[in-house]
Amino acid sequence: MTIRGVYAPVPTPFVDADELDIPSWRSNVARWMTTPLHGLVVLGSNGEAPLVDDDEADRLIAEARDQMPRGRLLIAGTGRQSTRATIRASRRAGDAGADAVLVRTPSYFKGQMTPEAFVHHYRAVADGSPVPVLLYNFTALTGVTLPVDVVATLAAHPNIIGLKESGPDLGYVGDLIAVAPEGFSVLVGSASTFFASLVLGAAGGVMAAACVAPDECVQMYELVGAGRFDEARRVQRRVIPLAKQVTAVHGIPGLKAALAQLGYVGGPPRPPLRPVNPDVEATIRQHIEQLAAMAVAVS
Amino acid sequence: MTIRGVYAPVPTPFVDADELDIPSWRSNVARWMTTPLHGLVVLGSNGEAPLVDDDEADRLIAEARDQMPRGRLLIAGTGRQSTRATIRASRRAGDAGADAVLVRTPSYFKGQMTPEAFVHHYRAVADGSPVPVLLYNFTALTGVTLPVDVVATLAAHPNIIGLKESGPDLGYVGDLIAVAPEGFSVLVGSASTFFASLVLGAAGGVMAAACVAPDECVQMYELVGAGRFDEARRVQRRVIPLAKQVTAVHGIPGLKAALAQLGYVGGPPRPPLRPVNPDVEATIRQHIEQLAAMAVAVS
Amino acid sequence: MTIRGVYAPVPTPFVDADELDIPSWRSNVARWMTTPLHGLVVLGSNGEAPLVDDDEADRLIAEARDQMPRGRLLIAGTGRQSTRATIRASRRAGDAGADAVLVRTPSYFKGQMTPEAFVHHYRAVADGSPVPVLLYNFTALTGVTLPVDVVATLAAHPNIIGLKESGPDLGYVGDLIAVAPEGFSVLVGSASTFFASLVLGAAGGVMAAACVAPDECVQMYELVGAGRFDEARRVQRRVIPLAKQVTAVHGIPGLKAALAQLGYVGGPPRPPLRPVNPDVEATIRQHIEQLAAMAVAVS
Amino acid sequence: MTIRGVYAPVPTPFVDADELDIPSWRSNVARWMTTPLHGLVVLGSNGEAPLVDDDEADRLIAEARDQMPRGRLLIAGTGRQSTRATIRASRRAGDAGADAVLVRTPSYFKGQMTPEAFVHHYRAVADGSPVPVLLYNFTALTGVTLPVDVVATLAAHPNIIGLKESGPDLGYVGDLIAVAPEGFSVLVGSASTFFASLVLGAAGGVMAAACVAPDECVQMYELVGAGRFDEARRVQRRVIPLAKQVTAVHGIPGLKAALAQLGYVGGPPRPPLRPVNPDVEATIRQHIEQLAAMAVAVS
Repeated sequence: MTIRGVYAPVPTPFVDADELDIPSWRSNVARWMTTPLHGLVVLGSNGEAPLVDDDEADRLIAEARDQMPRGRLLIAGTGRQSTRATIRASRRAGDAGADAVLVRTPSYFKGQMTPEAFVHHYRAVADGSPVPVLLYNFTALTGVTLPVDVVATLAAHPNIIGLKESGPDLGYVGDLIAVAPEGFSVLVGSASTFFASLVLGAAGGVMAAACVAPDECVQMYELVGAGRFDEARRVQRRVIPLAKQVTAVHGIPGLKAALAQLGYVGGPPRPPLRPVNPDVEATIRQHIEQLAAMAVAVS
Repeated sequence: MTIRGVYAPVPTPFVDADELDIPSWRSNVARWMTTPLHGLVVLGSNGEAPLVDDDEADRLIAEARDQMPRGRLLIAGTGRQSTRATIRASRRAGDAGADAVLVRTPSYFKGQMTPEAFVHHYRAVADGSPVPVLLYNFTALTGVTLPVDVVATLAAHPNIIGLKESGPDLGYVGDLIAVAPEGFSVLVGSASTFFASLVLGAAGGVMAAACVAPDECVQMYELVGAGRFDEARRVQRRVIPLAKQVTAVHGIPGLKAALAQLGYVGGPPRPPLRPVNPDVEATIRQHIEQLAAMAVAVS
Repeated sequence: MTIRGVYAPVPTPFVDADELDIPSWRSNVARWMTTPLHGLVVLGSNGEAPLVDDDEADRLIAEARDQMPRGRLLIAGTGRQSTRATIRASRRAGDAGADAVLVRTPSYFKGQMTPEAFVHHYRAVADGSPVPVLLYNFTALTGVTLPVDVVATLAAHPNIIGLKESGPDLGYVGDLIAVAPEGFSVLVGSASTFFASLVLGAAGGVMAAACVAPDECVQMYELVGAGRFDEARRVQRRVIPLAKQVTAVHGIPGLKAALAQLGYVGGPPRPPLRPVNPDVEATIRQHIEQLAAMAVAVS
Repeated sequence: MTIRGVYAPVPTPFVDADELDIPSWRSNVARWMTTPLHGLVVLGSNGEAPLVDDDEADRLIAEARDQMPRGRLLIAGTGRQSTRATIRASRRAGDAGADAVLVRTPSYFKGQMTPEAFVHHYRAVADGSPVPVLLYNFTALTGVTLPVDVVATLAAHPNIIGLKESGPDLGYVGDLIAVAPEGFSVLVGSASTFFASLVLGAAGGVMAAACVAPDECVQMYELVGAGRFDEARRVQRRVIPLAKQVTAVHGIPGLKAALAQLGYVGGPPRPPLRPVNPDVEATIRQHIEQLAAMAVAVS
């Protein structure tokens, strides 16, 4: 399996009483399936994965699969702090219908996360997972970084098929692409770096912007593929203001507020996350309207 | 309940096949009960808590309680990333016999961990926990810091009885002590800062050194209480070289290696943690022998 | 004046006794003038500017000008910690023949470097400088970052014509390009980000790689301008291994060692910088030979 | 020479036109000489040293010496980025009457500041300085840290007599004290850590609080010397609120505002530093009044 294209890291809907909102989950997923997205990432950071229990996670994956045709990739986040729990979560995810798993770096014991520890961890997970594994580096949240050499070593494992990098350091992304063997996909994690990364040779992206602007994100991907860089860059500039609202500025609560305004179910985040206030909702609405207006002006 | 004194944050023993080693857990706990320690912290960071499953955690608490007389405090780490899971873990810990729970800050979504989010989180946990709550700040591992004002606010809650600070910033510790109301205990988390913190007014400590040098750590506490500062400082200087081996230098794997040499069961850490190599074991042995030799020279 | 293209941030040669080596400076500059570089940056970070006295700086600028035809831009680093000293250095640089000045952020009093402080500082410098001003952000060395809004404000000043960003964050670079008015040049500072930044709309680069591989760096710039992205990317991959040796891995001492092997005068760095050891020299030699071999293979 | 006691790192007064205000400098110094301070640090960080030109620095030292009897120590900050400039500044400072020099770590080229580089730098400075040298570590501003082993090595040099540490990490301070030979003084740099550091064995302090509350700071020092820890701790608690205003919260501009209210000459900071606004002045006034009121209540 080779992973290319644009994947939306979708949020998990909750009802007010802090329980999963499965009907909304099903309807949201069904609606994303009407867009040109290449697939979804379920239970990534944007899925509030660290706040979701194991049994809930299994349910979310199975329900998503139920709404997704086989041609669309279902990638499930299964990273845990222990190797053992990560393997178990990956097995359950495969059983529930995931096409691949996205495994963020263990990170709690930062000083002990040596290159050797990362290699042992990911090899054990890749050996134990019934579906292919994507590495996942998110330094800003975890405080650790997968060394490029470690990625090069792990890329030789037949069940490790790529990596998602969430940070903005294009030097690091370029180094990853340079060591990646044929068929090993480097995916980036923000709208701000998506266009430039594609030009550098990235295989695609997993980014919150794809939840709220899937058409534009896929369009960027296709324009770069066709060598139409100037047009791709213009699309990126249109998307970035809204993209920032649903990531750096207001995080998952902002993403949920944006989705609610677009007709998806957003709902409250799970505590300790707090919902955005009405002022933020108004700002987000403006950004959505501006993006829509620009889309009209362009078409 | 007011918490004062010296508490050992004990590691969790595993057998090679990555399962809990309950017989060793029982014998280790029983042996610590022969020392003058005021109590134990089970499933703190040194207990590899983020690597332990919920059912394992419940078992560890219950078995420890079984070995601990009521006069010794059993404090259980129950911090999780979600408020909901933290409350549930705290309830189970109370049911299993914990006297209090130690709740580290949620931290995954760093940008969203506002003062308001911390206050809501800890109030909900304190409301839901059947036993008193200790706040737990460990910036080096979590990347977030509880603001002093937030601690002052939370200290007014009747079920929040103290805080453990794991970092070396004595300015911060001093500020916490200054805002702490009567009966709210500030505990520190390293041998390097223990003596000075006690002089500043800290109520005690939770530190890895207390696992391997319980007598010396309690002695320091009592010497400061008696105003014998010079003697306390001399004890601290003797303890620090070994204390560093089992924290900053070699972490939990170092702590387990040291315990093995002292006749406790150490055992392997759970992956992704890696055991120390034989060279490190030899270094740790030297530090243990030096501490023992100094103890003889003094007595 | 609009600044576009590739500029080499050239190192300052010293003789062993810690004095300027002016003859070598002249011969080095003359030799760079035989390459297609668009100009030089004198007394940037790579010029060891913080280690050079004011009278030495004036001399270096004047001697460089003497070797540089008017068609090649001579940009002089003149940032100091105080506004007053920065203005004075900029005046002297203009008098000595600099075409523009590159002014790194003041940074010593990090907590006081508010947006307001940056705006006041740079406006005063731009008002006082006889030649145009380039802003200069280098977060990794200074610990402060020019906010995008501040850059947008300053870009309206008629004597502020661009910015050099030394970091790898392409999200930030993209934001700068998005707010840059017509004629305001965003230059980047590393070979690792040069190609992607050009595609994003950057005007050029100021990077150590241009000292040791000026032909390749200018070639990348021209290939991107011609829309030949795949070729540009291939050139970048050839240059990066050597580029890292003379920046991240071995810094200015590495850059000087590389120049020495290429027939320029390198010489020792000024203390507290230490020269590289012979092993490093051998490694750098290998990278130079590999780059040369690849160039032959391509042509 | 052994340095013990309390030293005020005094700010440099400027007139509005950005020039030194020598008459005020003389009157301020004279007034500090009426307090029990053991000496002054001229041209430390609080003296805006990085914003002051060399000729101004020489003048400030000479004028201070003129106002200070030989029994009070005059310590001059002479750290520069280059070894050469640091030696020259130290020579001039000795000629101008400084009793010792305080030499902050060079730090611009962070990646190159190896232990070896620090050892070479400080040995060359100590060899070249006509007066004893104090090392100076201020990680929060410089981004580099003197390793404890390096300090232990340098402490053996006959012309290196101590170290000032400006940070709050009491573990580090304790380690420095542990390796310090007889007669090598560890001084700390904030009111928040002063009391605890003295108890740990520090020789004294250099802290902004000593500019505005010299009596209380010296009192703390003497109380600890007399073993009256509880009283010392109470004095510290009284001083800390004002101490924070003139350091962490408002920096040098806050310190100057406080001095102005106490009858010293404060004056504007040198740009790019900005003066505090009237609201901050009012807050600082309140803290001064509270400290004065507490002093009356105690006496």
